[in-house]
Amino acid sequence: MKSINLDEKLAKFTEHWSPKTIANFNGNDVMVVKVKGEFKWHSHLNTDDFFLVLKGSIIIQMRDGDVELKEGEIYVVPKGVEHCPLAHEEAELLLIEPSGTPNTGDPATAAKHETI
Amino acid sequence: MKSINLDEKLAKFTEHWSPKTIANFNGNDVMVVKVKGEFKWHSHLNTDDFFLVLKGSIIIQMRDGDVELKEGEIYVVPKGVEHCPLAHEEAELLLIEPSGTPNTGDPATAAKHETI
Repeated sequence: MKSINLDEKLAKFTEHWSPKTIANFNGNDVMVVKVKGEFKWHSHLNTDDFFLVLKGSIIIQMRDGDVELKEGEIYVVPKGVEHCPLAHEEAELLLIEPSGTPNTGDPATAAKHETI
Repeated sequence: MKSINLDEKLAKFTEHWSPKTIANFNGNDVMVVKVKGEFKWHSHLNTDDFFLVLKGSIIIQMRDGDVELKEGEIYVVPKGVEHCPLAHEEAELLLIEPSGTPNTGDPATAAKHETI
């Protein structure tokens, strides 16, 4: 029984766009991720996509407009909505999705869900 | 389409132990709450209980031992596990639970889930 420290988990890796699972609850994966640059346009047909910015800022590009997310801000991309995250500088995020959700929307191209 | 700023939401209320819903995703409520003092011993029979400390620190007392949670730390109380959160000084938390979960484990005594 021990708390999970987000900074300690984030210190364990350097790569971008590769979410690491740090906890599970009610069938969801809690993940931390470092991001920089532009991801790829994708959507999740059946699951909403929860973002919390822990450090830095990102832009969630969507077909109907962009949302800027600064440190301490959250956004939920509704299921089915095409989006493409973009970070001009490195940023750190907390993500929550149902366990096994492919980060690209497609199991064939998704990052492995490594637990750290 | 706008980000949700945690500090702005937390500035909207002052009471303790009264979670406010600020977003929903995949059937979950994302809530912020201010806490101070001791809550009550309770458990959630069917749902895990996700805590993230945004400011300050708390102790999650459990029958088998306590977990201290500092700023930037998370903990998941497994379903069915009795717990009693305690904050010596005011602290601010992000909570995530399936929509409608009573915060005391009992709908009769639960705080209303107000959305702000």
